[in-house]
Amino acid sequence: MTPTITAFASSPDRGRGLARDMRVRWALEEVGQPYEVRLVSFAQMKEPAHLARHPFGQIPTYEDGGLALFESGAIVFHIAERRPGLLPADADARARAVAWMFAALNTVEPPIFERAMALILERDKPWFEARQPMLDASVRRRLDELAARLGGADWLDGAFSAGDLLMVNVLMRLGGSGLVEEHPNLAAYVARGQARPAYQRAFAAQLAVFTAQQPAG
Amino acid sequence: MTPTITAFASSPDRGRGLARDMRVRWALEEVGQPYEVRLVSFAQMKEPAHLARHPFGQIPTYEDGGLALFESGAIVFHIAERRPGLLPADADARARAVAWMFAALNTVEPPIFERAMALILERDKPWFEARQPMLDASVRRRLDELAARLGGADWLDGAFSAGDLLMVNVLMRLGGSGLVEEHPNLAAYVARGQARPAYQRAFAAQLAVFTAQQPAG
Repeated sequence: MTPTITAFASSPDRGRGLARDMRVRWALEEVGQPYEVRLVSFAQMKEPAHLARHPFGQIPTYEDGGLALFESGAIVFHIAERRPGLLPADADARARAVAWMFAALNTVEPPIFERAMALILERDKPWFEARQPMLDASVRRRLDELAARLGGADWLDGAFSAGDLLMVNVLMRLGGSGLVEEHPNLAAYVARGQARPAYQRAFAAQLAVFTAQQPAG
Repeated sequence: MTPTITAFASSPDRGRGLARDMRVRWALEEVGQPYEVRLVSFAQMKEPAHLARHPFGQIPTYEDGGLALFESGAIVFHIAERRPGLLPADADARARAVAWMFAALNTVEPPIFERAMALILERDKPWFEARQPMLDASVRRRLDELAARLGGADWLDGAFSAGDLLMVNVLMRLGGSGLVEEHPNLAAYVARGQARPAYQRAFAAQLAVFTAQQPAG
């Protein structure tokens, strides 16, 4: 069967690839799995039909036959388990790739997401300016550590894996901040991920949802 | 071989089970895997020997023969894959349990952790009082959704799984806030997890590290 994923009907990031369906699209493209997309509006995301698929009323979800999954990390892992291309065959290397998946989502993404949310939700608050250096420092700490580990390697642990896929996508949320560029090896790492043909196809597909909605110029 | 994990030599939470080694200890106890613990000081965590094991200079780590892992979620998953007790045998049910693992760490934990960090790091800031309702609201939103999904069930998806283990441990960080107790089913869920013999053994083991350091009364 062809799996179906959900994505935003109206892309809040205007197709910059920051919505979490990008991770799943990219993973599907890496393993060569065709997929279908069902677009959901913000209102639909909070309706019972969608909440049955995703308890937290978000995107993406993944449906394949009788299986319904939520959480981008879990969906990427499920895709990576079923087809070769995103996890090493060696058991120890595979466990380390899974560690990088969790590191991307549980150690690196939280301070990046917190900083991004403050930029959106607290920009008009009297404390915004004062808190910004603190939020930047939290992000920089993780980037310093990540850059030190990556060093001169192409990917975090041997061949490109689902861990790299999630990490590159997490770092993309810092676009425009200049924080990634403080580490030339991290900037090159993100660019290396984005240069992959599978990334390019996934990015074009999620962007098409947005551009299709633009009124003719 | 007997795996070795790392834990804080000096427990910042005074043995309340909030340090992330608790998750790994609990998982090891659930599957009946004996383990050894190496305690590390805050200074040691930032030294090259520990950074080689954990790029972000944190605990826990997991070493077994030639394999070194970091990230509590990845370690719990590795343990769950090797011995029965934490993941269902059915492939679809297993994928859903993994979804709950990622949900605990990437959707539910971030707002809880952000709130906890603000209580520690921003209590003396002029904006602390004004931001607190916003942080509580972010946590409440996730708890509302989680409580709605859990309903009257014992666990999130059928039998107890690694997803429940991580979710219960994540919710423990709200202890004393009263937020979990706003949903009696969530409070009962946390208590149900904590009543498990494996939890009890793991909790006692991590507490013993702290009590052993207390000066005689």
